[in-house]
Amino acid sequence: MASKLITIIAGVGPGTGAAVARKFAESYPVVLLARNPDNFNELVKEINGKGGKALGISTDISDPTSVSNAFAQVKKEFGDDVGAAAAIFNASGGFVRKPFLELALEDISKGWDVSIRGGFLFSQQSLALLLRGVKEESKYPPTLIHTGATASVKANAQVSAFNTGKYALRALSSSLAKEFGPQGVHVGHAIIDGGIDSERARAWKGKDAGPDALISPEAIADAYWHLHTQPRSAFTWEIDIRPSVEKW
Amino acid sequence: MASKLITIIAGVGPGTGAAVARKFAESYPVVLLARNPDNFNELVKEINGKGGKALGISTDISDPTSVSNAFAQVKKEFGDDVGAAAAIFNASGGFVRKPFLELALEDISKGWDVSIRGGFLFSQQSLALLLRGVKEESKYPPTLIHTGATASVKANAQVSAFNTGKYALRALSSSLAKEFGPQGVHVGHAIIDGGIDSERARAWKGKDAGPDALISPEAIADAYWHLHTQPRSAFTWEIDIRPSVEKW
Amino acid sequence: MASKLITIIAGVGPGTGAAVARKFAESYPVVLLARNPDNFNELVKEINGKGGKALGISTDISDPTSVSNAFAQVKKEFGDDVGAAAAIFNASGGFVRKPFLELALEDISKGWDVSIRGGFLFSQQSLALLLRGVKEESKYPPTLIHTGATASVKANAQVSAFNTGKYALRALSSSLAKEFGPQGVHVGHAIIDGGIDSERARAWKGKDAGPDALISPEAIADAYWHLHTQPRSAFTWEIDIRPSVEKW
Amino acid sequence: MASKLITIIAGVGPGTGAAVARKFAESYPVVLLARNPDNFNELVKEINGKGGKALGISTDISDPTSVSNAFAQVKKEFGDDVGAAAAIFNASGGFVRKPFLELALEDISKGWDVSIRGGFLFSQQSLALLLRGVKEESKYPPTLIHTGATASVKANAQVSAFNTGKYALRALSSSLAKEFGPQGVHVGHAIIDGGIDSERARAWKGKDAGPDALISPEAIADAYWHLHTQPRSAFTWEIDIRPSVEKW
Repeated sequence: MASKLITIIAGVGPGTGAAVARKFAESYPVVLLARNPDNFNELVKEINGKGGKALGISTDISDPTSVSNAFAQVKKEFGDDVGAAAAIFNASGGFVRKPFLELALEDISKGWDVSIRGGFLFSQQSLALLLRGVKEESKYPPTLIHTGATASVKANAQVSAFNTGKYALRALSSSLAKEFGPQGVHVGHAIIDGGIDSERARAWKGKDAGPDALISPEAIADAYWHLHTQPRSAFTWEIDIRPSVEKW
Repeated sequence: MASKLITIIAGVGPGTGAAVARKFAESYPVVLLARNPDNFNELVKEINGKGGKALGISTDISDPTSVSNAFAQVKKEFGDDVGAAAAIFNASGGFVRKPFLELALEDISKGWDVSIRGGFLFSQQSLALLLRGVKEESKYPPTLIHTGATASVKANAQVSAFNTGKYALRALSSSLAKEFGPQGVHVGHAIIDGGIDSERARAWKGKDAGPDALISPEAIADAYWHLHTQPRSAFTWEIDIRPSVEKW
Repeated sequence: MASKLITIIAGVGPGTGAAVARKFAESYPVVLLARNPDNFNELVKEINGKGGKALGISTDISDPTSVSNAFAQVKKEFGDDVGAAAAIFNASGGFVRKPFLELALEDISKGWDVSIRGGFLFSQQSLALLLRGVKEESKYPPTLIHTGATASVKANAQVSAFNTGKYALRALSSSLAKEFGPQGVHVGHAIIDGGIDSERARAWKGKDAGPDALISPEAIADAYWHLHTQPRSAFTWEIDIRPSVEKW
Repeated sequence: MASKLITIIAGVGPGTGAAVARKFAESYPVVLLARNPDNFNELVKEINGKGGKALGISTDISDPTSVSNAFAQVKKEFGDDVGAAAAIFNASGGFVRKPFLELALEDISKGWDVSIRGGFLFSQQSLALLLRGVKEESKYPPTLIHTGATASVKANAQVSAFNTGKYALRALSSSLAKEFGPQGVHVGHAIIDGGIDSERARAWKGKDAGPDALISPEAIADAYWHLHTQPRSAFTWEIDIRPSVEKW
């Protein structure tokens, strides 16, 4: 792992973010952003302990100053000319289900702040580094992936606080794919259509849930890695990922 | 025009908003919201002069207090128990086309503030009145229509400040259709896929533009009225509207 | 009703087809095509008895010769230079739900023959007449509408015999809208997302079905008529229509 | 390569089909179906010469008897209890661009016969073998992939002979994914949104075409292989693949 290029991941929790971090850490130094350091401390230790390189930075992805500070710290650590091979936006506003007339502006703003404002801030900062990755002729085209959900393409009742942000993030991702593809950056969008496997999710699904009822975070990480390895002549913008037993 | 039920229109300018106001004013008192009173003053006079009833209220649709004040004024004017037969959200953040890395957060926030926050605030306040319209057995099912654009379903490069807001508004509209349809409120979404006919648009398109190259605002108003007249057993959520000569 | 222009409707049964026929018969002579004359005989009498003009022609819409013969008979009746103001393709292959491995080619071919081949044959013959309607400066832009279904945009398990045909018909409609819109013919597609109200459907839904659980055919006819009245500057290609209480 | 499970590929020409065959031949015996043996003869030699196993069968994919015979030959070669690890439907009706009124039914039927009827026949025969692959606990979930195109989701003018078939094939693929996913078969659909790299395509694009203007068939094969390796908890139904410089 001698790459000077790094991978930055926003929204690192126990599920997808951690699996993606482990996968990309096999090839790149990884920078992990999360508001609560508890979400990355163990993982940073684990990756560094296994011969990889990981740096965790406590970041409020919806706050311009916090995001700027995070990327300043990245440059301090890796050099002002650091480039990125990959950037993964995996942050998500909390899921709120509530009758629309009972929603307060604050309920719904939180989703927007993370998905839309956070998506904008992270993408903008990352793209500067990804474009440097293009110049430095990274092995694989530098890649920006936004994690979406069922709610990115289907807007159910009482969930508008969540799906408005997810629709908007999908628009951002599509727009960026068209602008930066010709510049050599691969922008992708993943529709994660189902629950992510975790202790909590399994407890919630109950024992009736078969072994394939929840999405393996490692399989998501593998799919993201596959997107990353696609050559310039064959970029995928969007994939959906769901359990084989999911109704859709 | 003896209806106690009113129609409220947010985003009244010279184009769609005015045409919709004229159309619905044939059947209902209309309340016109726009930030700049110049956008509705003439129209209010025109409608009142022709025997209709119109009230203009200067409103910043993205500001919770301003929107609350507007609806308080509506109640002061029409009674605390006023109900609505229709509410049209026609406001739109300014169109910004700029390389993504040159966008400032302020550029892009303006679009979100109008399309998403404004859409939320207006829809929430309106739905309370529309549900009262259901109780009062309005002739046609009370109707909430959100005006979308090409950018509601297609996210072109360099236009993310606009299309993120429009995608999010479409999610909101879909979610509300599913929640409030069973309660008797008809929620619709119109994809206006082309330029609206106006002096400015015609000047911009040039003399080469044929007579059908720009969308007639009156035709949009007719389509909105048709949606309004649909019975509960046959609600349309989404229509697209474009010039016959448009490429798509 | 002095129009020389006619309306042709394929797929006339007790539901949508009959309602559309009655609606358009208020303005145009109507030609009704169905394989089984029992499907139009009463209706022809009814329309002619009320001062309209209706002609029923027994036609297998999936058979090139039968369709040619039908249009030859139309010319014999209305003159070689007859033009059309509207053409509605409302035919549909039978709905088959079966495990895929139990489907015989014949099962599935029937759906294709009606939806795809029939859609092609009817559209081609109709467009010649609709283009003549353009030349004769019909009051409203000559209009070709294809009736779709939920299965036009959602392909459920075990229903591929039906949804393959409906997806294909939607492609045909979209392609024709783009080719013939600039020539003055309005091509539209309606996604009928729910059951059509009829004695049989009501019996099937059971007494629990509320008054709005099934789509009023008259409301569909009104929507089709609205599409027909749209001016060249504001064509709708696609509308969805569903009961207010429908889950989607 | 000791697998008893095979891979069957329909529509083997110089582009995608051959690349997919080479990729899957690294792990499985491959059966190559094409009408014209010239399309697979060299490839069969190449694969067998490199230590793989390939069998070419001249097959008219739109003809029930020809398809049955092909699968009978597969059983004769590999045993009556042969199972499949993968099946790829890569056949495509010829691309026809013509004004709609000039299309003959034969023009358009050819596209349907290959895309829709061929897709049905191949999928049905393959699924029986893929389900046997499930029983035999194949290393990766048995996988059926249908190759789509831009025309699977966008129906341009004058191309309805092609896009009707592609829309229908996409419906079939979606329906099969929902029916057979819970049974352990992974069904996927790829939207190939651009020209496939080949001598002919490069000549047609001209020297102005950059190195990334045409899709690498090997990259498509890699993407198909990635889909094949996805575990049951994380199936992708649809991916799009396009050149980084493509406008969309």
